[in-house]
Amino acid sequence: MRILVLGGDGYLGWPTSLYLSRRGHDVVVVDNFAKRDWEQEVGVQPLFPVPTLRSRLRAWHELAEIDIPARIGDLQDYRFVESLFSEFEPQAIVHYGEQPSAPYSMIGQPQATLTQVNNVVGNLNVLFAMRDRAPDAHLVKLGTMGEYGTPNIDIEEGFIDIEHNGRSDRLPFPKQPGSLYHLSKVHDSHNIMFACKVWSLRATDLNQGVVYGVETEETGLDDRLATSFHYDDVFGTALNRFCVQAVADHPLTLYGRGNQTRGFLNIVDTLRCVELALLNPAERGEFRVFNQFTEQFSVSQLAGLVKEAAAEMGMNVRIDHLPNPRVEMEDHYYNAKHTKLLDLGLEPHQLSETLIDTMLGKIRRFRERIDTALFAPRATWRPKEYAEPALVAPMASVPSYERPVSRN
Amino acid sequence: MRILVLGGDGYLGWPTSLYLSRRGHDVVVVDNFAKRDWEQEVGVQPLFPVPTLRSRLRAWHELAEIDIPARIGDLQDYRFVESLFSEFEPQAIVHYGEQPSAPYSMIGQPQATLTQVNNVVGNLNVLFAMRDRAPDAHLVKLGTMGEYGTPNIDIEEGFIDIEHNGRSDRLPFPKQPGSLYHLSKVHDSHNIMFACKVWSLRATDLNQGVVYGVETEETGLDDRLATSFHYDDVFGTALNRFCVQAVADHPLTLYGRGNQTRGFLNIVDTLRCVELALLNPAERGEFRVFNQFTEQFSVSQLAGLVKEAAAEMGMNVRIDHLPNPRVEMEDHYYNAKHTKLLDLGLEPHQLSETLIDTMLGKIRRFRERIDTALFAPRATWRPKEYAEPALVAPMASVPSYERPVSRN
Repeated sequence: MRILVLGGDGYLGWPTSLYLSRRGHDVVVVDNFAKRDWEQEVGVQPLFPVPTLRSRLRAWHELAEIDIPARIGDLQDYRFVESLFSEFEPQAIVHYGEQPSAPYSMIGQPQATLTQVNNVVGNLNVLFAMRDRAPDAHLVKLGTMGEYGTPNIDIEEGFIDIEHNGRSDRLPFPKQPGSLYHLSKVHDSHNIMFACKVWSLRATDLNQGVVYGVETEETGLDDRLATSFHYDDVFGTALNRFCVQAVADHPLTLYGRGNQTRGFLNIVDTLRCVELALLNPAERGEFRVFNQFTEQFSVSQLAGLVKEAAAEMGMNVRIDHLPNPRVEMEDHYYNAKHTKLLDLGLEPHQLSETLIDTMLGKIRRFRERIDTALFAPRATWRPKEYAEPALVAPMASVPSYERPVSRN
Repeated sequence: MRILVLGGDGYLGWPTSLYLSRRGHDVVVVDNFAKRDWEQEVGVQPLFPVPTLRSRLRAWHELAEIDIPARIGDLQDYRFVESLFSEFEPQAIVHYGEQPSAPYSMIGQPQATLTQVNNVVGNLNVLFAMRDRAPDAHLVKLGTMGEYGTPNIDIEEGFIDIEHNGRSDRLPFPKQPGSLYHLSKVHDSHNIMFACKVWSLRATDLNQGVVYGVETEETGLDDRLATSFHYDDVFGTALNRFCVQAVADHPLTLYGRGNQTRGFLNIVDTLRCVELALLNPAERGEFRVFNQFTEQFSVSQLAGLVKEAAAEMGMNVRIDHLPNPRVEMEDHYYNAKHTKLLDLGLEPHQLSETLIDTMLGKIRRFRERIDTALFAPRATWRPKEYAEPALVAPMASVPSYERPVSRN
């Protein structure tokens, strides 16, 4: 299958590209390194050294004898997107190419605007290019479980049957996203649903849970293939950060009481889910939503698991509760359905002490690279005057970002 | 009350500014004349001559002895938006300042992107300025009934109580918008809901039906105060276009069978609804949705009413059915609630033959300005190859529009 992997330089895009290319697909990596710019902007770095995309592709060629072409450009540039489609005539597009951080989107007006414009316009451009150049191709779009928020009812996969005043319909599941980033994904989902209906495109929206993991089978083959693993306040996710904190002998930092419950999945399952979506494409005109996670945990359950695994390795881990920088319910009902990918054959890698051991082991090898100053949350959901100042480090290191949008 | 009217040069923004200023409010008109640019781009003009904003404001000063300040700038420019808030310290913001046309948003990729970026970024900037400069102000935002689409259940006002698997919650009403323009309003609604929750802002989202009418009490005082009335395929709405077609002795052009049912309201009721929202503001932290229309009609019912009224004036009107350029259900259930504004005191001006008479009368005075070439729909929802070519005039007159978004 000819597949464009948009955002193919990122934490998930890179391993996905290796995984799919190794299984015989013709993969093209597309990226503009915007994520590397955003890392500089907020002053963070991935834990494992990440070579340039060219070097990583050369390493992959050496190790696997596979050539993956790369195209560098911005999805906001429609001529660039069109040129990808004419050059490669993709049969599928795996779209990871978006600003992926909720805290980044909440830093301030410039970052909020950048996030929504970058994500919405890039995605719209992909839809237009599909309409005009590849109407039969299949879009596999990365969304997030965070689009749903935490409603007091079971979360279905994209759509819900509603009975109301004696009539009924199957309607899009109501969305209550929890950050301006999550909102951008909700906007994308609505735009894609419309494009499928009006232009008879086919799309799978993967509402993904929180991903954890340090490596995949392919990236583990060589340090030069390492993926961009973050443990900081902006791009890091809960379990990954906890493991790094444990190794750094730093308390695990829970936001608030830690009863917030979310869906989680192993990075290797992300790759398999994307593959399953590709191998079982949506129909023409179909907008399909899969909830892509394998287990639900509360954040304090996760911290407890890391504490136990670390204890067995002789580390003594403390757990700290920080005032929550986000606005979210800390005690809530959460039951999200996630059967569609299982029905297609997903065999989940459950989170186990063994896995956490492996993560801690690999992180230990890069221990001197850990910067403990990057653990504390800086972006706050409430305006600054409402935030507890002691717990919110100033964003002084964030340069003012020029207005990313202009009509001229 | 100190009120910013964003988009105060437009079909609704202008009459609203006159109406509110005449009732003692301190109104500031804000506009960047983007709408006048878009009219040029698609080659259309309002039926009544519309003087420059400066001349209209001078005329209003002469006639009513009221000075309305104007500020010219783009809501996508955050520094401009902030400067409005520091200069005027608004207590309320009436936000009409968006690209308002569904067909415009469907012309192609540049117009789609422009619509979503213009609307989403402008609105986000207003929210950030409220957060930082006027957290107690009340946002009255113009949305559209088209956000809901045509579900097979009753449409509630913004939220719906859902029972599901033995649990229940009150959730945002699912959205199924019918164009990339309608989608931009859905994106806005989600962004505003989030800002109210996280920043404790207050907002009223007016999901407005299709507005008809040639004038209001204030704009009718003098030709120099005329509002920007459109009858063309891009910015015109159904009833307004039918009245102009009747006067021009042109068949009324229905899209498809004409059974599409929508909510409609008189332009004078738009002004009163906005006033009622202002006088009864949302609470801090409250995101409130009103369905703003007074009557439901199918498009062919409307055409029938125009035909009858015209007949009594001696005009013989034909009705033509064009293949529908849009993708929409033509036979569907439609029952949308609209009690919240009535509860606040709205006394609807129902559509009557008398009103249509008045419209036809005023339109007749400007009969030589009617360009019958502007009736036929040009933008099609389906890609061009799916559209019936005979019925879709080429968009040759639409210049290519440079990519409106750039990171540089």
